[in-house]
Amino acid sequence: MNELRLIDAFLAPFGLSRDARASGPGVLSGPGDDCAVVRPSTGRKLVLKVDELVERVHFDWRWFAPDDVGHKALAAALSDLAAAGARPRWFLCALGVPPGADALRIAGGVARGMAALARRHGCTLVGGNFTRADAWSVSITALGEADRPRGRGGARPGDAIILVGELGKAALGLRLLRTAGHRPGSRVRAAAIRAQLRPQPLVDAGLAAGSLAAAAVDVSDGFLRDLGHVCAASRCGAEVEVDSIPLDPIVRAAGIELALSGGEDYALLLAVRPRNVVRLLLRLRRAGAPAARIGHFATGRGIRLLEGGKLRPLPKRLGWDHFA
Amino acid sequence: MNELRLIDAFLAPFGLSRDARASGPGVLSGPGDDCAVVRPSTGRKLVLKVDELVERVHFDWRWFAPDDVGHKALAAALSDLAAAGARPRWFLCALGVPPGADALRIAGGVARGMAALARRHGCTLVGGNFTRADAWSVSITALGEADRPRGRGGARPGDAIILVGELGKAALGLRLLRTAGHRPGSRVRAAAIRAQLRPQPLVDAGLAAGSLAAAAVDVSDGFLRDLGHVCAASRCGAEVEVDSIPLDPIVRAAGIELALSGGEDYALLLAVRPRNVVRLLLRLRRAGAPAARIGHFATGRGIRLLEGGKLRPLPKRLGWDHFA
Repeated sequence: MNELRLIDAFLAPFGLSRDARASGPGVLSGPGDDCAVVRPSTGRKLVLKVDELVERVHFDWRWFAPDDVGHKALAAALSDLAAAGARPRWFLCALGVPPGADALRIAGGVARGMAALARRHGCTLVGGNFTRADAWSVSITALGEADRPRGRGGARPGDAIILVGELGKAALGLRLLRTAGHRPGSRVRAAAIRAQLRPQPLVDAGLAAGSLAAAAVDVSDGFLRDLGHVCAASRCGAEVEVDSIPLDPIVRAAGIELALSGGEDYALLLAVRPRNVVRLLLRLRRAGAPAARIGHFATGRGIRLLEGGKLRPLPKRLGWDHFA
Repeated sequence: MNELRLIDAFLAPFGLSRDARASGPGVLSGPGDDCAVVRPSTGRKLVLKVDELVERVHFDWRWFAPDDVGHKALAAALSDLAAAGARPRWFLCALGVPPGADALRIAGGVARGMAALARRHGCTLVGGNFTRADAWSVSITALGEADRPRGRGGARPGDAIILVGELGKAALGLRLLRTAGHRPGSRVRAAAIRAQLRPQPLVDAGLAAGSLAAAAVDVSDGFLRDLGHVCAASRCGAEVEVDSIPLDPIVRAAGIELALSGGEDYALLLAVRPRNVVRLLLRLRRAGAPAARIGHFATGRGIRLLEGGKLRPLPKRLGWDHFA
């Protein structure tokens, strides 16, 4: 193997080669050159996100196929663009590759999963880097565009908390994989495993929400932890009605902590002024995105969980900390 | 240690905190938010590069201080922008961090080296990511802007090959570190070690060259390998007069292969139409960048080395291949 064969194996699923210059809309120079060159849209803001998946930290080859890893790495970055309400445009991928007999096959598989998701969202690979490493790693830098990107910091006391997507399934899927491996045993279990291996970034929902959402975050580290990020950035608190979180029965049976702090859901949390809630829910329904009002932002600090009208203590673990 | 303390330690040398939103020119939302948001300049092209350094592959803690690693990771990415003739604007950094007692100290040091270089070139940190890993890794995505970015593909037979910067010193520095460690013993040896640990990206020279250079590449993988990239992309060959490559006496004494294929020089190779050569050399001199005409692009394919008027065989190894 050499570096050029590795590049070829990676580019092929994207329909690209080292000679190809332009690889998509707005791309003046693509992965074949030293640098990528793109033409940003006039007057729009550029939204940037870097995210990384590492073997044995974020994924395990016993359960993940190479194309699952490629899909999930890009999905994680696109999910942040979705929260910002940005339209995905371009991305770069830095791969850490342990040399070995199966490196070409794995790199090709990673690219295949990534290319399929990229195509679905109109996001073009424009550059990358390969380096030797002891473990596989996939680092994605995604670039999107938006007129008025949302951040974490725009929530106000009184705003509704709108949850788009589902909580707890991905964490349950990981638990199932760890205990039973790849034998789902039922349709609902298979769906949970799929949520872990193949999360779908809610790009269309993020775009549909537009300026009706004042702040947003995607749930990657865990619902309570990510909601806490919005509270901290917006200098307010939050009250969540646990009963109004829509839960798959299989998640409810396995324990609501999976939904509250499991992580990797790639759901969206939106802060929405009361007058905009109905319009927003309508728009999201039209975009085919399940959404629910699950509480509101409040004065003060911290998150309060309410269950049957009573305060429920927060779980000890709010979410995922790489280094805790 | 937890992730937030790690983020704080990393942001401090940049004069940033998790609360800070805007961190520099054109930055609407910086490292404190989920995504970075920047405002690209109207009408200019965006030039993108991702590059990664990995512990034990690209650097060794026996010789590299943390701030050397931070400096070099950013320098490598800025060097590609320099070749393109782009002005550095923003960058993102994804760090792979082995948990341990010294993780905070190392992350802070990496940031310190990076921040100093970033400041010098007006390039602003806008986002990042931390992940647990078995080995340290630093992945940089650099964004620059240019009216007419140069690529590898614009050279024509007859164009002069202009070398900006020096060849062979960094490779010699690595050899010295491997054999004698951090005891340089003389000023010239110290300079070689410095070229290895602290390469300077030729950003000003790249900007000064402007449209007088038709194609460019930075020498990171090795002179012959990177020149070969330009030849391949431009569908031409090249003739290099070995005697006209300016060599430090210590590099010449250690063997010219260090200059021809050693790599990590972060010099620039420019393809320049004959009528533009004098003007370009003048401009580079004014920019304080040493430059020399070392040959020309030619019809046909492949690189020919001439020494004392005679053909000299190519060395077996043309440069650095991570996977060869």
